[in-house]
Amino acid sequence: MDARTSYDELINLSKQTALLASCEALLSWEQQTYMPPGGVEHRGNQLALLAGMIHEQRTDPKIGDLLGELEASDLTGKPDAVEAVNIRELRRVYDRATKLPRALVEEFAKTTTVAERCWAEARVKDNFPAFEPHLARIIDLSRQMAECYGYESSPYDALMDSYEPGATCEQVTALFGRIKEGLVPLVASIIASPKQPDESIVRRNYPVDRQEILGEAAAAAIGFDFQKGRLDRTAHPFCSTIGPGDIRLTTRYNPVYFNDSFFSILHEAGHGLYEQGLLEEHFGTPMGEAVSLGIHESQSRLWENAVGRSHSFWRHFYPRTRQVFHATLHDVALEDFHFAINRVKPSLVRVDADEVTYNLHVLIRFEVEQAMLSGDLPIADVPAAWNQKYQDYLGVTPPSSKDGCLQDVHWSIGAIGYFPTYTLGNVYAAQLMNQAEESLGSLDELYAAGEFHPLLTWLREQVHAHGQCYRSAELVERVTKKAPDETALLESLRSKFGQLYDL
Amino acid sequence: MDARTSYDELINLSKQTALLASCEALLSWEQQTYMPPGGVEHRGNQLALLAGMIHEQRTDPKIGDLLGELEASDLTGKPDAVEAVNIRELRRVYDRATKLPRALVEEFAKTTTVAERCWAEARVKDNFPAFEPHLARIIDLSRQMAECYGYESSPYDALMDSYEPGATCEQVTALFGRIKEGLVPLVASIIASPKQPDESIVRRNYPVDRQEILGEAAAAAIGFDFQKGRLDRTAHPFCSTIGPGDIRLTTRYNPVYFNDSFFSILHEAGHGLYEQGLLEEHFGTPMGEAVSLGIHESQSRLWENAVGRSHSFWRHFYPRTRQVFHATLHDVALEDFHFAINRVKPSLVRVDADEVTYNLHVLIRFEVEQAMLSGDLPIADVPAAWNQKYQDYLGVTPPSSKDGCLQDVHWSIGAIGYFPTYTLGNVYAAQLMNQAEESLGSLDELYAAGEFHPLLTWLREQVHAHGQCYRSAELVERVTKKAPDETALLESLRSKFGQLYDL
Repeated sequence: MDARTSYDELINLSKQTALLASCEALLSWEQQTYMPPGGVEHRGNQLALLAGMIHEQRTDPKIGDLLGELEASDLTGKPDAVEAVNIRELRRVYDRATKLPRALVEEFAKTTTVAERCWAEARVKDNFPAFEPHLARIIDLSRQMAECYGYESSPYDALMDSYEPGATCEQVTALFGRIKEGLVPLVASIIASPKQPDESIVRRNYPVDRQEILGEAAAAAIGFDFQKGRLDRTAHPFCSTIGPGDIRLTTRYNPVYFNDSFFSILHEAGHGLYEQGLLEEHFGTPMGEAVSLGIHESQSRLWENAVGRSHSFWRHFYPRTRQVFHATLHDVALEDFHFAINRVKPSLVRVDADEVTYNLHVLIRFEVEQAMLSGDLPIADVPAAWNQKYQDYLGVTPPSSKDGCLQDVHWSIGAIGYFPTYTLGNVYAAQLMNQAEESLGSLDELYAAGEFHPLLTWLREQVHAHGQCYRSAELVERVTKKAPDETALLESLRSKFGQLYDL
Repeated sequence: MDARTSYDELINLSKQTALLASCEALLSWEQQTYMPPGGVEHRGNQLALLAGMIHEQRTDPKIGDLLGELEASDLTGKPDAVEAVNIRELRRVYDRATKLPRALVEEFAKTTTVAERCWAEARVKDNFPAFEPHLARIIDLSRQMAECYGYESSPYDALMDSYEPGATCEQVTALFGRIKEGLVPLVASIIASPKQPDESIVRRNYPVDRQEILGEAAAAAIGFDFQKGRLDRTAHPFCSTIGPGDIRLTTRYNPVYFNDSFFSILHEAGHGLYEQGLLEEHFGTPMGEAVSLGIHESQSRLWENAVGRSHSFWRHFYPRTRQVFHATLHDVALEDFHFAINRVKPSLVRVDADEVTYNLHVLIRFEVEQAMLSGDLPIADVPAAWNQKYQDYLGVTPPSSKDGCLQDVHWSIGAIGYFPTYTLGNVYAAQLMNQAEESLGSLDELYAAGEFHPLLTWLREQVHAHGQCYRSAELVERVTKKAPDETALLESLRSKFGQLYDL
C-alpha cells in the first residue's frame, strides 16, 4: 500500500472508534440526566460492553502496523500538517493504550469501581479509614502504570500526561510555587480589607425555572449554539460531546443561591464553545480534538470568570437579570450585585471556591497526591497533611474528612495527576485574555455592548481550530508570544480584586 | 462440546447482541426526545454503525453451527422448556436474518431511508404521485423478501411473520371479515342514535403540566413502576425498552384536548407493563421477549380501553381529575365526562379514531396492502381504492391523500404486514379480559376501588411471564380455553356502546 492509502485506513479506524465512543458518551450523559434508578445495573453492562469493544479497537495491532509504516513515510515531513499531527497523536494514544498489560487495566478498573462506591459511602459517613486501603491500592496501581508508561524524571509525569500531555512535575511545581507566593498574601489582604460585599444578595430566592431561563440566555449570548446542543439538569455539572452538532451542557440549581447554576452554566458553556469550535471535518481524529484538559479548562474559566464575573458583562446583563428576578433584585444596585458575585472567602470546598482561593485548593491537592505517589506521605496521614495545608494556605481547618480530603471524586476513580489542569487552565486563560485584549481592543467595551462574538471568533481562530496540532504550552506561546507563566494570572487577580476590595 | 456448553454459548451470544441492541434503543429513544436538531446527522452515523454490528452478530455462522448441534440434542425434548423455546426462537431469528441476501438488505435499507423522507414531504404537500414510485419499489422489494423467507400460501404471510409469527393471511382475512360484518352496522346505529355526548367537554383548556401530572398518576395507579421507567415528551407516542429496570414511555400533549395524552399514556403504559413483566433473568433471550406485536398491542389496548375508558375506572379517577383541572371541569358530571371520552365518530385519521371505528381503519389498510402485494391493485390506484373503502366502511371520504393513504409512516419504512397486529391486539385483549373477569370476579368493582393490582398480577402470570414460550394464538387459547376469534371483541363493544348510546 502507498502511504496515502495507509493513512486513509488509519483515519478510518480512528473515526470508527470515535463513533463507537460517542455512543458510550451518550449513554453516560443519559445516565447522569434522565436514566431511572432501576436502570443502573443494565447501564453498567452496556457501558462495560462498549468500553471493551473500544479498548479492543484502540489496541488493534493493525494500528501499530499502519503507524510504523506512516512514520517512515513522507507524510510526517511537515510537523504542523494535518497528516503529521494525526499520525503523531494517534501514536501517542496507541502507545499509551498498548503499554499497559491487560491484567493491570482490568485490576485498575475493578479497583476503582469498588473504590468509587466505598468513597461515596466513606464521604457520607465521614470515615477516611474506610477509604484508606482503596486509596492505597489505587496509588500503588498508579505507580505500576507510571512504570509501564515510562517517564524521564518523575512517575507523576507519566500520570499527568493522560490529562496534560507534555507537562512535567518539575515545571508545574515551580509554577505553582510562584502562584502560591502571590496568592497567599493577596487572600490575606482581601480578608483584612474593611470593604466587604453583602453576600446575602446572592443568597435570596432565585426560582429555579427562572435561573434556567437566564442561564440559557447567558450561554446563548456568549455564543453557545442551542441548535447544536442542550442544557439539562444533573447532580454535578459537566459538558459532554456526543458528536459534531451535538454538545451537551448540564448544571444543577440551588433555589436560594444565584452563583451555583449561573456560573456553572457559563463554565460548561465555555467548554461547549471549545467543542463547538473544533472543526467538524476532523471529528474522530486528533486534529478535531481538544489539546488537553488544561486548555479545555482555560476556555471554561475564561468565559466563567474573565467574562462572566467582569463588571462590564454585568453592565450589559444586569438589567435583564433584574427583569427575570424582579421581586428578588428590585432593591439591589449593579455595583452591589457585582461585588457580591465576586466575594472572596477562604472555604473548605473546592467546587464552591471563589476565583482567587480556587487555585490554592488545587495546589493542596497537587502537593498531596505527589507526596502519596512518591511514598513521602503514608496514606493514613493524608487527612492530617490535608488539614495542615488548608490551615497554612487558606487559614481554615476542615472539621471533618467529609469536607476535607474526602470531598473530591477524583482519587477514587484513579484520576491521579488530573487536579493541576484546573490551575493550568487559569494560567493559560489569563495569558490568552491579555493577548485578546491586545488584538481586539477594549474587551470591556465589547462586553458592555453585549458583543461577545469578537472574542469567540478570535478564540476559534487562535485556539479551537487547531485541534491537537500543538501541545498546550506551545499553543499558548504561539498565540501570546510568551511561554505560559503565572504573571498574567496574578496580575489580573491583583488588579480586579485590588479595585473591588480597595487594596 | 456437550450440549449444555453449546447452549450456554448460544445464550451468551444472544445476550451480547441484545446488550448492543439496547444501546441502539437508547440512542433511538434519545433521538426522539432530547437530541438537538444539529445532532441528526451524527446520530444517523451512530445508529448505522450499531445496526451493522448487530446484523453481523445476528448472522454469525457460529450461531447456525450451535443451533444445528443443539437441535440434534436432547435439550429440545420438552417443547415448553426454557432451552427448547430459546433454541426454537433463536433459530427463527437466525433463519430470517440469514435468508435475505446482503444486497437485498442493503437495497431495502437505502430505499426505505429515501422513501421515508419523500413520504414526509409528499404528505405535507398532499402529493401522492411523488411518493408512488417509492411505494412501488418497496412493494417490489417486499415481494422479493417474501420469496427469500418462503411461505406456504401467500407472500403476505412471510411479511406478517415479522410482526405476528404464525399468523396467516387466510385466517386474518376471515377474522377481519367477520369483524367488519359486526362493526359496520354497529357504527351506523351509533351515528343514528339521538343520544350523543357533549364532546366539547374534552376540548376545553387542559394545561399541559397538569396533564403530565395526571397522566403519570394514572400510569403509576395501574402499576407502571417509575423507579424502573420514565415518561417523556415526543412527537409520536411510543414505548421503548432500554433494558431490565429501564422502560421508557413517551407521549405528546395537546393543551385543548384531554384524550390525546391521557389515553396515549395509558396505552404506552400498557406496553410498558408488559415489558416490566417480562422476566429479568431471561433478558436478551426469547424467553424474556414479547410474543408478538399483536400480544403487545393486546396489553396496551386492554389498559387504554377496557380499563381506562370504563365507567368504573372513572368512578375512581374522576374526582382526582377534577381536582387537577378544577377550573376546567367544575361543572361537568362524571356521566357526561365518561360519555365524552367515549364518543364514537367515523373519522379520517387512524391515530385519532375511537375504540369502535379504529378496527375499520386497520381493516382498510390490511386490504389495501394485500392488494398491492398481490398486484391486484396498481400503486397509482391506491388513493382511489383507499377513499372508496373509507366511504364504504366508515361513510367518510378523505378530501386529500394527506389525511388519506399518506397518513401513516408504516409503508414508507417498509413495514408491510404490520397493520393487522393492531386489530389482532383488540381481539386478544377482549378475550383475555373475559377470562380475567371469570378468574378474578367483578373487575368493575376492583377498578372503582382503585385496585388494579389483581388484574396486573393475573396478566403477569398468564401472559408476561411466559416470554416467547407460546405463539400468540396458542397463548390466548391456553389462557382463555378458546382459540382467538371476534366474539369477545364484538360483544364487548356492542354491550358498552349499546348502553352509552341507548341502542
